[in-house]
Amino acid sequence: MLHVAKKTEQTHPVVITVRAPDSTGLVAGIAGAVAQAQGNILDVGQHSDVDSNWFGCRLEVDPSVDAALLGEALDELAASRGLTWEIHDATERRRIVIVCSKTLHCASDLLARVSIGALLGDVVAVVSDYPDAEALADRHGIAFHHVPAAEDREAQERALGAVLEELDADLVVLARYMRILPAWLTERWAGSMINIHHSFLPAFAGAGPYTRAHERGVKLIGATAHYVTAELDAGPIIAQDVERVSHRDSVEDLIRRGADVERSVLAAAVRLHLENRVMIFGNRTCVFD
Amino acid sequence: MLHVAKKTEQTHPVVITVRAPDSTGLVAGIAGAVAQAQGNILDVGQHSDVDSNWFGCRLEVDPSVDAALLGEALDELAASRGLTWEIHDATERRRIVIVCSKTLHCASDLLARVSIGALLGDVVAVVSDYPDAEALADRHGIAFHHVPAAEDREAQERALGAVLEELDADLVVLARYMRILPAWLTERWAGSMINIHHSFLPAFAGAGPYTRAHERGVKLIGATAHYVTAELDAGPIIAQDVERVSHRDSVEDLIRRGADVERSVLAAAVRLHLENRVMIFGNRTCVFD
Amino acid sequence: MLHVAKKTEQTHPVVITVRAPDSTGLVAGIAGAVAQAQGNILDVGQHSDVDSNWFGCRLEVDPSVDAALLGEALDELAASRGLTWEIHDATERRRIVIVCSKTLHCASDLLARVSIGALLGDVVAVVSDYPDAEALADRHGIAFHHVPAAEDREAQERALGAVLEELDADLVVLARYMRILPAWLTERWAGSMINIHHSFLPAFAGAGPYTRAHERGVKLIGATAHYVTAELDAGPIIAQDVERVSHRDSVEDLIRRGADVERSVLAAAVRLHLENRVMIFGNRTCVFD
Amino acid sequence: MLHVAKKTEQTHPVVITVRAPDSTGLVAGIAGAVAQAQGNILDVGQHSDVDSNWFGCRLEVDPSVDAALLGEALDELAASRGLTWEIHDATERRRIVIVCSKTLHCASDLLARVSIGALLGDVVAVVSDYPDAEALADRHGIAFHHVPAAEDREAQERALGAVLEELDADLVVLARYMRILPAWLTERWAGSMINIHHSFLPAFAGAGPYTRAHERGVKLIGATAHYVTAELDAGPIIAQDVERVSHRDSVEDLIRRGADVERSVLAAAVRLHLENRVMIFGNRTCVFD
Repeated sequence: MLHVAKKTEQTHPVVITVRAPDSTGLVAGIAGAVAQAQGNILDVGQHSDVDSNWFGCRLEVDPSVDAALLGEALDELAASRGLTWEIHDATERRRIVIVCSKTLHCASDLLARVSIGALLGDVVAVVSDYPDAEALADRHGIAFHHVPAAEDREAQERALGAVLEELDADLVVLARYMRILPAWLTERWAGSMINIHHSFLPAFAGAGPYTRAHERGVKLIGATAHYVTAELDAGPIIAQDVERVSHRDSVEDLIRRGADVERSVLAAAVRLHLENRVMIFGNRTCVFD
Repeated sequence: MLHVAKKTEQTHPVVITVRAPDSTGLVAGIAGAVAQAQGNILDVGQHSDVDSNWFGCRLEVDPSVDAALLGEALDELAASRGLTWEIHDATERRRIVIVCSKTLHCASDLLARVSIGALLGDVVAVVSDYPDAEALADRHGIAFHHVPAAEDREAQERALGAVLEELDADLVVLARYMRILPAWLTERWAGSMINIHHSFLPAFAGAGPYTRAHERGVKLIGATAHYVTAELDAGPIIAQDVERVSHRDSVEDLIRRGADVERSVLAAAVRLHLENRVMIFGNRTCVFD
Repeated sequence: MLHVAKKTEQTHPVVITVRAPDSTGLVAGIAGAVAQAQGNILDVGQHSDVDSNWFGCRLEVDPSVDAALLGEALDELAASRGLTWEIHDATERRRIVIVCSKTLHCASDLLARVSIGALLGDVVAVVSDYPDAEALADRHGIAFHHVPAAEDREAQERALGAVLEELDADLVVLARYMRILPAWLTERWAGSMINIHHSFLPAFAGAGPYTRAHERGVKLIGATAHYVTAELDAGPIIAQDVERVSHRDSVEDLIRRGADVERSVLAAAVRLHLENRVMIFGNRTCVFD
Repeated sequence: MLHVAKKTEQTHPVVITVRAPDSTGLVAGIAGAVAQAQGNILDVGQHSDVDSNWFGCRLEVDPSVDAALLGEALDELAASRGLTWEIHDATERRRIVIVCSKTLHCASDLLARVSIGALLGDVVAVVSDYPDAEALADRHGIAFHHVPAAEDREAQERALGAVLEELDADLVVLARYMRILPAWLTERWAGSMINIHHSFLPAFAGAGPYTRAHERGVKLIGATAHYVTAELDAGPIIAQDVERVSHRDSVEDLIRRGADVERSVLAAAVRLHLENRVMIFGNRTCVFD
């Protein structure tokens, strides 16, 4: 429906994602559609949320599958069972826009990964409210857009929104962007804007998490990558991790140790998203990894 | 085939496990069988090993499924696709025998878990080559069998084998049993005998792993739960975990810290096995958790 | 001052803990006192909190040290530098009281550890507002005190306080005790009452943490052991750990997985406390491990 | 002795490291020397290895300490107690040389960290037996030296050795360099050459660790950073970490997941070394973190 695979040089599996109201026989129906299209299922991940009657399914299928036939078979199911589906193949490359402020370890890490081919996407631009990231973008031969703070806060937000539209981003990554986005922007990019928060959410949501973690004397610090929603730091969580700390660690030490967790959690979330391994249901996610 | 569900008081899901030579349409066939039997699939785990053409699948199905119908449908598939299947329901309770020597933290931990209902099985006896575990068994009101070392090593092995047969064990747990078992015994209990080794295998296989870990100056120690095969510490791995250590830790400290990892790794492996989440293929395992 | 070592059968190190207002030369003074008493320092842990000018130090000294001489030397320093000190040796065994409600995995785990000598202390009683733990206490040959809920909440609190006094507890462990204690009780046991909270504090403080973690869709759950203060779940943290979870885990699964983290975190905190490795400063702790 | 602090702009602590044959009163002597030089001790780490009678100590001292006086006081102790000492301050910046082959994630990660000031050192060159890293070095404005494989293996080794000498490296980082170094080279850089091995040593030492890990069916993969010695993958371990994997991971997946562990473990080891937190004794390390 959304995307039919371009069929060139397929060595990676084809990924099929399906969402539907839960009902008996759905897996049988979908697996039958794949069989009809001569596809061999390599991996299945499936989840039913009883409370909301939500069904989600992700299949990896041998690239020899006949995508046109498969699409037809899924369309039939779509009509009878109310499901929506997508087919993704390895030739699909998303347009990623990195948005950051002055702290650059996350942006720098994502660019280092992309530059050695570790992520299935292309970074098309770096956008920032500060000029600091320009040298980093230049070093990777990537466009830089400066959208500075302005007296009129809404003007800056509109400018940012316009840049993202113009760049035709498939995925917006807030890699330590320190401004709160307005609801209209988060809604525009619902499900395709990922933020890294430098704490183990829901602990220490909002500003200054490391200072507050230090004051509270926690023994682990963490980072959380989540889809952005209108409510600050409250969107569906994709990935979290923690790192052991001790009384010896000052706030500066927490910031340094946390930086490593932030970069690996954000990179993991971006990878999972690009590999179509994340599905949102309600305010939660399925992660088929 | 092996086990048809007893249908009383089913609130837990019914678990279906299937093994087969891999072929196109297997998942569709199995899911179709479930649909035929009015079953709703709650969870699917599936794995295909390309190298050995092995296919394994685990489904959780709503307990309202008609198990007799399901069995018939799977039998049809078995004939045409060469698959073998099992159906397990929540009323199934395995007979567990714990075998240990003088170090009792693993045995003690398993009994503590069973006594509060945290494992889907019953410990029917504790067996040991030393008398030390008798008090522990007594405290839990469980039979104790002493199979002491003898001049004739093979006689002791035959005695142990006889005790396990007599107890009609479904699962034998070697909870720090310090004798090497003969091939005939490991083959008799292939796939139903779990050992805990006190290192992160394959590092430090064999005797004295903590002493050797200390000498090598490793920064993490670990534990490995695996099915027992004729080759020492080389069977299919079910679960592993590690714990951070430092230069401050003496061999005694490693033993103490390691004990915690051992008990949690062994308990995890036993739980996964009892919930039919582990499948062996070649010398490896699928763990559907 | 508080405790002079009994000098019998010392194979474990003697532990010296010192607290003082921070000033230049403190470590030199303390190490000099140990040298004066013919002690060999095996391990030093030290921490200075710049903000509060707090200094804490823990030394492990060879048991051949002359404790009387050492006490004299430290008393001199105490006069001039305002420090307080304690000397602990391996013969010291604290009286532990376990307080629990209906959920028994933590109490059961602590008793299993104590019964195999894994903790430097003796459990003198189990106390509960429910009768459920009595069988557990009996099995270990330990006194059980039932302090049931009453119409008059304060009466129950006074009864609990009286039992703890009568038992002459050195350490009170709240092993999933589900009542909130009044300030007078937490103040009476300040620094010697440890609670396990079933979340990664400060996330999900208060009731029902697993249900709230499930709703929020977190990818890690945790447990926190802390000293109890008048403010609920807000006392100095001793130990924390987390466990990976996924969308597949129901609230019941989180409870089961969390139980393992709770028991190991609580046991770690109790061990650290009994080995005099924890010092409180402000609302935080130093943990010299 | 080796290095006396340059006293400009000291905001970071001064670090003193001491090694000696163990004897009573050493800590008192060292702490006394610091007190004599008006130094305030901020942190002490100390370790005594009973077996080899080795004593090592690391102190962080307020930068207001009089380094000349301190040096004199330590020299006196050196004469009487046989100790060796070093004083390091924050102005000290080591010359780092990165040596790599075709796999660049570790080199790329180190350069990304250095470029944002996250490591206390300067990368003065990238050296490789392949041309692939040249673009990476260029991007960071860093010299690149190509030392290609040659028919005469020893000639290539001599060429590499000559480049390292010429660069006057303080620290050589083997960031996935795939050639085995001759003993004369590892001995020349003893204690100042760090390698990252892509397994949890001592498991899977040597070539192809991920392939072997996959065959063995391990549930965790790891990485190990260690000082290089003449014996392959057997030098003193500085840092190790692991990552959870499953049956779903192919060898390629292990390589990808492992890459993240490798980069963070190597970066941690380099940071610990540059902050003078690592001391070698025998074939092991103390890490004062």
